Amino acid sequence: MKRIPVAVLAATGAVGQRFVQLLANHPWFEVTTVTGSERTVGGSYGDGVNWVLPGDVPEAVASLTVQPTEPNLDVPVVFSALPTAQARELEPVFAAAGYAVVTNASAYRMTDDVPLLIPELNPDHTALICRQQKERNWSGFIVASPNCSTTSIVLPMKVFQDEFGLEAGIITTMQAISGAGYPGVPSMAIMDNIIPYIGGEDEKLENEPRKLLGRVVDEELVMAGLQLSAQANRVPVMDGHLASVAVKLGEPATPQQAIDALKSWQPPAICKELPSSPEQLLIYRDEEDRPQPRLDRDSEEGLAWTVGKVRRCNVMDLRFMSITHNTLRGAASGSILNAELLVLQGHIKS
Amino acid sequence: MKRIPVAVLAATGAVGQRFVQLLANHPWFEVTTVTGSERTVGGSYGDGVNWVLPGDVPEAVASLTVQPTEPNLDVPVVFSALPTAQARELEPVFAAAGYAVVTNASAYRMTDDVPLLIPELNPDHTALICRQQKERNWSGFIVASPNCSTTSIVLPMKVFQDEFGLEAGIITTMQAISGAGYPGVPSMAIMDNIIPYIGGEDEKLENEPRKLLGRVVDEELVMAGLQLSAQANRVPVMDGHLASVAVKLGEPATPQQAIDALKSWQPPAICKELPSSPEQLLIYRDEEDRPQPRLDRDSEEGLAWTVGKVRRCNVMDLRFMSITHNTLRGAASGSILNAELLVLQGHIKS
Amino acid sequence: MKRIPVAVLAATGAVGQRFVQLLANHPWFEVTTVTGSERTVGGSYGDGVNWVLPGDVPEAVASLTVQPTEPNLDVPVVFSALPTAQARELEPVFAAAGYAVVTNASAYRMTDDVPLLIPELNPDHTALICRQQKERNWSGFIVASPNCSTTSIVLPMKVFQDEFGLEAGIITTMQAISGAGYPGVPSMAIMDNIIPYIGGEDEKLENEPRKLLGRVVDEELVMAGLQLSAQANRVPVMDGHLASVAVKLGEPATPQQAIDALKSWQPPAICKELPSSPEQLLIYRDEEDRPQPRLDRDSEEGLAWTVGKVRRCNVMDLRFMSITHNTLRGAASGSILNAELLVLQGHIKS
Amino acid sequence: MKRIPVAVLAATGAVGQRFVQLLANHPWFEVTTVTGSERTVGGSYGDGVNWVLPGDVPEAVASLTVQPTEPNLDVPVVFSALPTAQARELEPVFAAAGYAVVTNASAYRMTDDVPLLIPELNPDHTALICRQQKERNWSGFIVASPNCSTTSIVLPMKVFQDEFGLEAGIITTMQAISGAGYPGVPSMAIMDNIIPYIGGEDEKLENEPRKLLGRVVDEELVMAGLQLSAQANRVPVMDGHLASVAVKLGEPATPQQAIDALKSWQPPAICKELPSSPEQLLIYRDEEDRPQPRLDRDSEEGLAWTVGKVRRCNVMDLRFMSITHNTLRGAASGSILNAELLVLQGHIKS
Repeated sequence: MKRIPVAVLAATGAVGQRFVQLLANHPWFEVTTVTGSERTVGGSYGDGVNWVLPGDVPEAVASLTVQPTEPNLDVPVVFSALPTAQARELEPVFAAAGYAVVTNASAYRMTDDVPLLIPELNPDHTALICRQQKERNWSGFIVASPNCSTTSIVLPMKVFQDEFGLEAGIITTMQAISGAGYPGVPSMAIMDNIIPYIGGEDEKLENEPRKLLGRVVDEELVMAGLQLSAQANRVPVMDGHLASVAVKLGEPATPQQAIDALKSWQPPAICKELPSSPEQLLIYRDEEDRPQPRLDRDSEEGLAWTVGKVRRCNVMDLRFMSITHNTLRGAASGSILNAELLVLQGHIKS
Repeated sequence: MKRIPVAVLAATGAVGQRFVQLLANHPWFEVTTVTGSERTVGGSYGDGVNWVLPGDVPEAVASLTVQPTEPNLDVPVVFSALPTAQARELEPVFAAAGYAVVTNASAYRMTDDVPLLIPELNPDHTALICRQQKERNWSGFIVASPNCSTTSIVLPMKVFQDEFGLEAGIITTMQAISGAGYPGVPSMAIMDNIIPYIGGEDEKLENEPRKLLGRVVDEELVMAGLQLSAQANRVPVMDGHLASVAVKLGEPATPQQAIDALKSWQPPAICKELPSSPEQLLIYRDEEDRPQPRLDRDSEEGLAWTVGKVRRCNVMDLRFMSITHNTLRGAASGSILNAELLVLQGHIKS
Repeated sequence: MKRIPVAVLAATGAVGQRFVQLLANHPWFEVTTVTGSERTVGGSYGDGVNWVLPGDVPEAVASLTVQPTEPNLDVPVVFSALPTAQARELEPVFAAAGYAVVTNASAYRMTDDVPLLIPELNPDHTALICRQQKERNWSGFIVASPNCSTTSIVLPMKVFQDEFGLEAGIITTMQAISGAGYPGVPSMAIMDNIIPYIGGEDEKLENEPRKLLGRVVDEELVMAGLQLSAQANRVPVMDGHLASVAVKLGEPATPQQAIDALKSWQPPAICKELPSSPEQLLIYRDEEDRPQPRLDRDSEEGLAWTVGKVRRCNVMDLRFMSITHNTLRGAASGSILNAELLVLQGHIKS
Repeated sequence: MKRIPVAVLAATGAVGQRFVQLLANHPWFEVTTVTGSERTVGGSYGDGVNWVLPGDVPEAVASLTVQPTEPNLDVPVVFSALPTAQARELEPVFAAAGYAVVTNASAYRMTDDVPLLIPELNPDHTALICRQQKERNWSGFIVASPNCSTTSIVLPMKVFQDEFGLEAGIITTMQAISGAGYPGVPSMAIMDNIIPYIGGEDEKLENEPRKLLGRVVDEELVMAGLQLSAQANRVPVMDGHLASVAVKLGEPATPQQAIDALKSWQPPAICKELPSSPEQLLIYRDEEDRPQPRLDRDSEEGLAWTVGKVRRCNVMDLRFMSITHNTLRGAASGSILNAELLVLQGHIKS
């Protein structure tokens, strides 16, 4: 099978680098185009990038010439690692011009007709693409990944919603510094410290799960009727967003019932065909001191959810803790999985 | 004024060292006796201690001979830094023998007739001492400090309880490694990591505030009718326990009303006479990214509470964050303040 | 090919766990026996071990019953992760009883007739085995790996010795916490800190390279005539020992000549046949800010040396920096490579 | 005594903030003027500064209006925290206009007629001021502080030079992140890592001590005849530059003689009159695991040198380790001490 040529928009940034690294040996996609800022355009990617990941720049991409971010790229699919403001301006231009825009940016996540997608959780939300194309008269489309902190909590919520109903959640996150990109958080700000503020993060945590857990009916999104309250904290950890969550269920459940639900949950059948989706998507750990970022973030190559500490809550119904790797499952890998689903569903043609 | 001679029990441990350091220049108390384990008994404190605090062992204490922990010490007051099991066994022996036992240990915190005391919060709880002495036929008594994580949250809760009533709280803490003593947490366990488990800590957080916020009526303790749910986490921070709290109030309050209540709250008048009690006990910070452990833990020499981020909670009523220094306000300094109150109230005679 | 059954001695400790993890999928060796302390003997390895590595205990080993460390094991090869005192006592017993003892312990490293071995550096030193067996009348033998900090500096030294001669070296190391095992360094000791002392490490750094860089003539070891001075420091880094070295050469060399020597160096031909030896054993990085522990320690699965910053020294001849992964190349992986060489040379029969 | 009004140039930066904080309660100086960049000029200092130090902006300075950095300030003394390029341009302008420029910047440190000054080490070097003023026809002058890493090693070198002569030194530093200012080192670059490169630092370490240890003869500086070689490393430590040094002496000395020299060394008599100079300037620690950044950097309020681990070097003569607090003794406090000496010597008139 010939691989589908793809572009990475803003390929020199921290998230862009992850796309380049992760796509280096992808079975379905091949990075043939990279775009970057004025400073880097015209030179080779290898020269323009300040590579901050372990290992070296993949050779095949290092020699590519950096292009401006304009919709004249010879690829059907663009992975967008654009900053929010640029994403807001440029992603619709690409979609209008016929590109499949698979984005990690926040600009259109909460837009009614843009699927906010985790393939193993709500693959049917891509039904919004038809409406998006019809109403906007676009030949391409935009599909968005959720925020990395949203990702960390939403799969166990989905399981509880399916089994018991879900009415409310109180969330406190402990988020890794890699979530802020590079240079990101100054070392003097975070060493031996916690910063109880990440701009816009509380709102994303309170809103995005309501969309992800909603239903698409007649190409229309119905948000989940769920109240969420969030406090996001930055902690001195490299990778992995850990969340402490208390939830109110629709109907009573014991901790053991909740644990059983988590352990027996299976993703939709189509996920078996996604090349990047891990064998074990949701890992429940019984140890009283898990999940931990350093021990659990890399499970299944950073693509699994690890959940633990389900127990009775004296105030709501249950408490639990959940973690995902923020730059893998919560960012670049998540978008790549979205693109894989879009290929399987025929939205991207190979 | 001649200083009151005091002993520090288990003076060579991490908490014991803090007592020794903090009492070095105390206006009312003078460490004249230190006790330690078999290994150190009979030698000088300076030789026996593995001093882990910045600076050197206070000279006056370095030359003291370490005594066994037995109730034949020539002092009226003992500060107990004993491990839980030893505290459980020995503290009653000292109290029966006439000593004022001012303890940082957890053994008797939740015992009905033992005051669990923060002088600026519930100074009237020392009324339990009379009952303790009568019923147990003790000439001395035990007064306990709360756990360091309890301390970090309980003062803003007190303010809200006084102003609006307080019905429930959901708590997630991020606790410093110094809370585990020395050697405590292995560096390989906590570097670049979070451990979502501290043995017994969730239960302490869920129970101790109910006692601290309770009332003493006719020498009888009435616990506060308050439901609490807690998740304690260990984070790679040296000092300072930071807590993220959502609360349900007795009657509605806006965030601004809650902030006003915090800013205008004043401790009981007697606290002005406690030599160690800080000028500003409760600091409210308006910045959206405070409190932070490294910036706020040392406020007022580690004796203040710093609170911030009071805002509406989508699920309960309000959210906020609070921090105290765990080994100062939350441990040794807290017990020293307790002893100061006991002097003022006449329970300890100078 | 049937895999050779091997035992891991002291398999429940930090180094022992690494052996178990690394041998899980080894093409030539299969862990069929694990030994442990009294506490764990008789139970399953999975139950007895406090597994501190990411991922889970390899299934095939988890179900093994922990044996006492006695020379009645049904394997020809034992990998020793014994503590020094036990190693000193037990390794000769195993060697006398016919076992190939491949050890990571320091007990016999500097013993005249025990090869101190890095297969890619001094594979001919195994010639000492014959003398060891003859003089001691052993049917088995002991082969030792160097200390993890020695390892980090010795390969570039070897290259310089071969090309220019090597007369002296002044070394300052910055060593990772994982080098101290588990629980090892208390977090309160090392967070936001450096400890300029590691017991015995300076001496190892000053002596072991002289043996590794020596020659074996007529089954007799001749130490290299090299003066070394070392200062070992513990730093808050998880893995990777980084060393800053100034060297005096036998004959003059420019930095460029030294860099060329490093870049063109090739290990002995036999190393191509070692299944674990990496494709690129010695990586020279031209960037002025490399090597760095987090970026370079995992190169070639933690088996490569990464060297950089070769430049003129105003006092000696040249300066450089070098790093290896201390628990992989510098410990368990190093010993496994030793065992591979011993198979190739016929000292271990398959 | 009325305090001398002073200005802090570039008062909003990280070093500028330290000046403001440290001068808040100075007995001789009072900050009456602060200058800043265009962004902050015209507003209050409290509004313009992004205060990164613990505690709050000193009230008296918070209300000052930020001025442009131009030589029309109504003060006789300016403390310069200017970035190098601006310092190069503006410091001579201020000196020509009659100001005493006490600078922490590197621009003129190595200039022949500018004293590079540590008052307790080379107070006589201010004799260069006369020449500076004569030859340049300035009514003011520039006096510079050494680089923070130079500072950390130079006092023990001075002691050895005085006692035994000093011919060469090989230095490896482990430098704190606060040395890079704010935002400075990205957390993703330094967490769990070491960066073996600080721009220009090796050269400063190799050159500045030669000037500090030189002699001023007939208003002419004679550099010390000393060969130095340095490797500077950034480590994940907040404050405190720790150095590992091997030295070649002019005449033989045993470690004990060197330790005795360090312990008995006394600063010049004039230093007793400097209000900020600490009681114990040079602390020698006998423990084998000291000095350590977290335990020793704050000795004498961050103004002492702590030295330890003097021992025989197999290659040079002696090894030792030394530390100072990089933003206190090594930066702002050092410059304030310089100004105090200049007052005592009459170069600054009160």
